[in-house]
Amino acid sequence: MSMNSFGHLFRVTTWGESHGPALGATVDGCPPGVPIEAEMLQHWLDKRRPGQNKNTTQRNEPDAVKILSGVFEGQSTGTPIQLMIENTDQRSKDYGDISETFRPGHADITYWQKYGIRDYRGGGRSSARETAARVAAGGVAREAIKALAPNVEITGYMVAMGDLEIDRSTFDWDAIGQNDFWIPQGPEVAQEWEAYLLALRKAHDSVGAIVEVVARNVPAGLGAPVYGKLDTDLAAAMMSINAVKGVEIGEGMAAARLRGTENADEITMGENGPEYSSNHAGGILGGISTGQDVVVRFAVKPTSSILSPRKSIRKDGSPIDVITKGRHDPCVGIRAVPVGEAMMACVILDHMLLHRGQVGENRGKIG
Amino acid sequence: MSMNSFGHLFRVTTWGESHGPALGATVDGCPPGVPIEAEMLQHWLDKRRPGQNKNTTQRNEPDAVKILSGVFEGQSTGTPIQLMIENTDQRSKDYGDISETFRPGHADITYWQKYGIRDYRGGGRSSARETAARVAAGGVAREAIKALAPNVEITGYMVAMGDLEIDRSTFDWDAIGQNDFWIPQGPEVAQEWEAYLLALRKAHDSVGAIVEVVARNVPAGLGAPVYGKLDTDLAAAMMSINAVKGVEIGEGMAAARLRGTENADEITMGENGPEYSSNHAGGILGGISTGQDVVVRFAVKPTSSILSPRKSIRKDGSPIDVITKGRHDPCVGIRAVPVGEAMMACVILDHMLLHRGQVGENRGKIG
Amino acid sequence: MSMNSFGHLFRVTTWGESHGPALGATVDGCPPGVPIEAEMLQHWLDKRRPGQNKNTTQRNEPDAVKILSGVFEGQSTGTPIQLMIENTDQRSKDYGDISETFRPGHADITYWQKYGIRDYRGGGRSSARETAARVAAGGVAREAIKALAPNVEITGYMVAMGDLEIDRSTFDWDAIGQNDFWIPQGPEVAQEWEAYLLALRKAHDSVGAIVEVVARNVPAGLGAPVYGKLDTDLAAAMMSINAVKGVEIGEGMAAARLRGTENADEITMGENGPEYSSNHAGGILGGISTGQDVVVRFAVKPTSSILSPRKSIRKDGSPIDVITKGRHDPCVGIRAVPVGEAMMACVILDHMLLHRGQVGENRGKIG
Amino acid sequence: MSMNSFGHLFRVTTWGESHGPALGATVDGCPPGVPIEAEMLQHWLDKRRPGQNKNTTQRNEPDAVKILSGVFEGQSTGTPIQLMIENTDQRSKDYGDISETFRPGHADITYWQKYGIRDYRGGGRSSARETAARVAAGGVAREAIKALAPNVEITGYMVAMGDLEIDRSTFDWDAIGQNDFWIPQGPEVAQEWEAYLLALRKAHDSVGAIVEVVARNVPAGLGAPVYGKLDTDLAAAMMSINAVKGVEIGEGMAAARLRGTENADEITMGENGPEYSSNHAGGILGGISTGQDVVVRFAVKPTSSILSPRKSIRKDGSPIDVITKGRHDPCVGIRAVPVGEAMMACVILDHMLLHRGQVGENRGKIG
Repeated sequence: MSMNSFGHLFRVTTWGESHGPALGATVDGCPPGVPIEAEMLQHWLDKRRPGQNKNTTQRNEPDAVKILSGVFEGQSTGTPIQLMIENTDQRSKDYGDISETFRPGHADITYWQKYGIRDYRGGGRSSARETAARVAAGGVAREAIKALAPNVEITGYMVAMGDLEIDRSTFDWDAIGQNDFWIPQGPEVAQEWEAYLLALRKAHDSVGAIVEVVARNVPAGLGAPVYGKLDTDLAAAMMSINAVKGVEIGEGMAAARLRGTENADEITMGENGPEYSSNHAGGILGGISTGQDVVVRFAVKPTSSILSPRKSIRKDGSPIDVITKGRHDPCVGIRAVPVGEAMMACVILDHMLLHRGQVGENRGKIG
Repeated sequence: MSMNSFGHLFRVTTWGESHGPALGATVDGCPPGVPIEAEMLQHWLDKRRPGQNKNTTQRNEPDAVKILSGVFEGQSTGTPIQLMIENTDQRSKDYGDISETFRPGHADITYWQKYGIRDYRGGGRSSARETAARVAAGGVAREAIKALAPNVEITGYMVAMGDLEIDRSTFDWDAIGQNDFWIPQGPEVAQEWEAYLLALRKAHDSVGAIVEVVARNVPAGLGAPVYGKLDTDLAAAMMSINAVKGVEIGEGMAAARLRGTENADEITMGENGPEYSSNHAGGILGGISTGQDVVVRFAVKPTSSILSPRKSIRKDGSPIDVITKGRHDPCVGIRAVPVGEAMMACVILDHMLLHRGQVGENRGKIG
Repeated sequence: MSMNSFGHLFRVTTWGESHGPALGATVDGCPPGVPIEAEMLQHWLDKRRPGQNKNTTQRNEPDAVKILSGVFEGQSTGTPIQLMIENTDQRSKDYGDISETFRPGHADITYWQKYGIRDYRGGGRSSARETAARVAAGGVAREAIKALAPNVEITGYMVAMGDLEIDRSTFDWDAIGQNDFWIPQGPEVAQEWEAYLLALRKAHDSVGAIVEVVARNVPAGLGAPVYGKLDTDLAAAMMSINAVKGVEIGEGMAAARLRGTENADEITMGENGPEYSSNHAGGILGGISTGQDVVVRFAVKPTSSILSPRKSIRKDGSPIDVITKGRHDPCVGIRAVPVGEAMMACVILDHMLLHRGQVGENRGKIG
Repeated sequence: MSMNSFGHLFRVTTWGESHGPALGATVDGCPPGVPIEAEMLQHWLDKRRPGQNKNTTQRNEPDAVKILSGVFEGQSTGTPIQLMIENTDQRSKDYGDISETFRPGHADITYWQKYGIRDYRGGGRSSARETAARVAAGGVAREAIKALAPNVEITGYMVAMGDLEIDRSTFDWDAIGQNDFWIPQGPEVAQEWEAYLLALRKAHDSVGAIVEVVARNVPAGLGAPVYGKLDTDLAAAMMSINAVKGVEIGEGMAAARLRGTENADEITMGENGPEYSSNHAGGILGGISTGQDVVVRFAVKPTSSILSPRKSIRKDGSPIDVITKGRHDPCVGIRAVPVGEAMMACVILDHMLLHRGQVGENRGKIG
């Protein structure tokens, strides 16, 4: 039992603090024979990396991932893959003044209350920087999925930010990679979002967001009832990401408003198996994938580190007005997109392996 | 690793099918010396039990729980507590016609696709009847919490059902146990909810709901970053309940709309420790409890078993219109209230034990 | 994490005390579609059951196992299989006098020291009666192995008891089931063992034993380095059996006396794959099966419950001479044979599933 | 579930291959506030390190451990501690010739059979070099134990090597650190052992050994029945060490020869609690510590890498005579001493934390 690990057969343990020498992920359970190179993982890290565009923090680190074990001559060997990212741009000075102060909305106070000691530099272990390790591990998961089920595609994108929301009638898969917000919308919409965020930054404020991650072409039958359900594991995976306050599968919270006649996706027999009239279920029934798109959404709260003063206390109980200087995204939801994708990849791979272990390749036939 | 277990140190494994001889929970990790009698557990089971009122199913079973192990002379011994509930009212005939049919919105098709065999009687393992075992286990957790931290109170209630929503300005804790919906509202509101549900039942329809569970007086410091966070474990616990499609902590999905200046709960020093100006965080920062109320909400989709016909297919792929007869709640959310409470109790106890194991009783002092 | 569970994908949790209402095993991870009937499990329980012959205790219980879940129409469904054995012959009176006394060699004192409460009746949870649940679970494992790899054979037998030892030059597989000691020797040897044990019983004494369990036709490649090695898991499984004090794989402790030129099993290429000149390794190299016989031995200490007085103390610290009346085997090693077999079956099945999950069916080819 | 991890609350995951860039251990669950510096860990690594004396291999690496996370200003923070040891002296050329060959007694053939790919350089993951990571993690465990229970002492030593055995009547704790074999005997005996080993080396041979590890002043009550027993976990921990073929607790395999009147340790009441007339039990009853010395022994097989030719096959099935050149200990048992100590430390700490989590500090009183 490790509180810094997730997954059943594909097991990822992350380690490291924001301003320590390095951070990384110990990835256990990657099947042997999967082609893995540092470049493959770097691709996804670069997507998450701060300093990529003007809407994310200005901390400029290469976030170069090194593979220390588990890969031999370009292929996984079935042994633990150690992924390390060195912290090269630490600027600890920026954080010295928070050693005795609890920043509102941050984990400063609770880490102190729990452990009686905390690495206060940049939030230490509670920093969103930990998610870099997830993205690296997710890169390994993606390669393993590719080897096992080449058609699976995992894509994340933002669907809302503060008052803005995407227009699903103009949803454009291709646009996602072409703007700074990972939104499935054309360049005019992206400009609008950019202006909105710029105004917030100038107002010394920040804003929340909603990210959606979809896995397409997932085989039916993944998920292990009743406490290792695919949706259970996805909910845990997403809720474990920093600043996430809500997780939805398919219809999500809105399911509460629906009637039974509206909600249940009707089934017909198609050429390649069952087809569904709709996907309120988000691709999961009884915790097991149906073969439809697996759809997860999660809400990210606004960045707590803002330049506007907020009341708080010091360790000694004395009051203080906190203004958080330093390099901070006005919307951490942007960088949560590749993190959500990485978590989805890890969970899907894990359940592919688990299904193989528990059931084998024989599944019930239909038609 | 068991896919039918949850919890770290307080570990619950449920077993059993809707129409088998019995179902139950193997509860491991209850501390020794906790007073436990079957009656204590029965209290909570009776709260969940169908046939209690006209808004839940008419299946009338005593759901009597037996303690088969782990309790000696009225006290837990530290060994596994086996809780068994015999299925006395099975009426398997009602379900014979679904052996070849996949009911829309149910797990019939996915269990078949995964396992190639399924106990179709009443949904087998995927039946909401499994939650009786959770409620029994939750009863054990409640007694153990009482022994360790007598002030902790765990209360669930409905906050929305279809088009209806509670009015938080008239929130009444005492009213919760006095109506059939576990709503914190007076009798007139309850009557309105009852009329709404009756109309749905007559229309052969069903509806979704939102349940909120609050744990009060939880000590600060519970939760184990970064993948055993208190909110991560709560999200998994709630999402694992049948029909749940979304989970929120504190502000939940609405956090996406907030600005940083609105969202971060400001901290001041009170007589008994830190106090917060608000509770957008839902009592959890960085995955660790703050000492504020821990607030979780989850959405339950509408009952899929309805008397209105829905298109589906048989195992052989042929089309069929499914009407689900039998005894079914028009709103399964009602019975999800005690289940949500049980899951909250299990998670809170688990993290109390975990904190003790990992950190001991020394916590960081403030002031 | 459960301290009453073992196994990775095939996960067995036992529960129950010697003199409670029942005991049993929650078996999770049995693949779907395995034919399972209570009679199949009863076969192995009858082998273990006391009262079978005059060399084991006179406690006469049918030990009838009931299947409460996870099996539908004679086949496993992939959901947890609950196996229950009711305690029908409890005679708690026999044990009333030990409620305040710590019997030497028993867990009475340590359970008290750990938990501050103990079910003293017949040793409670620490009774060897718990092993009945293992044997039932092992029966499930055997059926699943049969479905996956029909050639695997798992056989246990005694190789030593006190001063007696088997003669390996007259080893006879067929004789094992034909005597009360499960020894691979003819009837004259069995008579000699019986006389030896009778003399001990008359002398109010007991004796230790060594049990060997062999798994034949195990496929190469099972075992998950470096902490889930096949031998690591076997060592844990056997050491967890009551009264076991040592575990050996292949050459075992005697490997310390060997030279490198003697110990390493030489390899040649046979018609069906690699062949070995010897089996010092016990069928395991680097924690992974070679395809040779997997050979495990374990030593069982003499029964601590004897009619000869032994010095001890009561809970209040006062001295007492303990004589343990009641029904006790003079050599618990005899009944440890089917228990050892059951543990071997569970471990082998677990690693077959694990290998499938982690690696799939592709293995490295030789020749 | 990770196959490269062990421990419950104190959880150690090792990673890395013999000739990769680095290896190490991810240590999760170390309590916060424990003083930890790299030098403290280095002390134990130096004890294990090859090239220390002429009886171990000549591979000369500093084995310098770096702490990458989880320690802040010289104290553990409760977050994962990443320990890295870079491989500075890799000499991969020495191993190129074994890429297609299976060395007898090694895991070459089984890794190939399992994974279909292997890092053949120096045995890859199956190399005894992995144990350096264990020793580093054991160093962390020792510091945490020191903080929690300063009197606990953990000491390992050799008790047998080939035909040689220690004389328990001249057992000398102080001598253990003063000779190259970690034997509790005076310098003359050490010279005898050295001569014995030198002769073996000249004969191009190797030899097995028995190591004993004792934990003194362990509190009563540690161990979690029935599958997380202290002896169960110790058996697994020791059997997971490379080349170990047998594990004994207390009397061990010899318990089979004892009678009940000889074996059970009699109990009397001493000034500081219960006292025992002997320690056949090895400090563990029913899987729980008694407060006596916890005594574990394990047998290490002779080094398989010898200069004498042994028959084997290549990957293509063709025969080959294998002579293993390179730097190899004639008795790997010597270096297994600090590894056994490290595993003991990890298991003891783990059960101290586990006891605290499961039971708290209240234990049953005697007297």
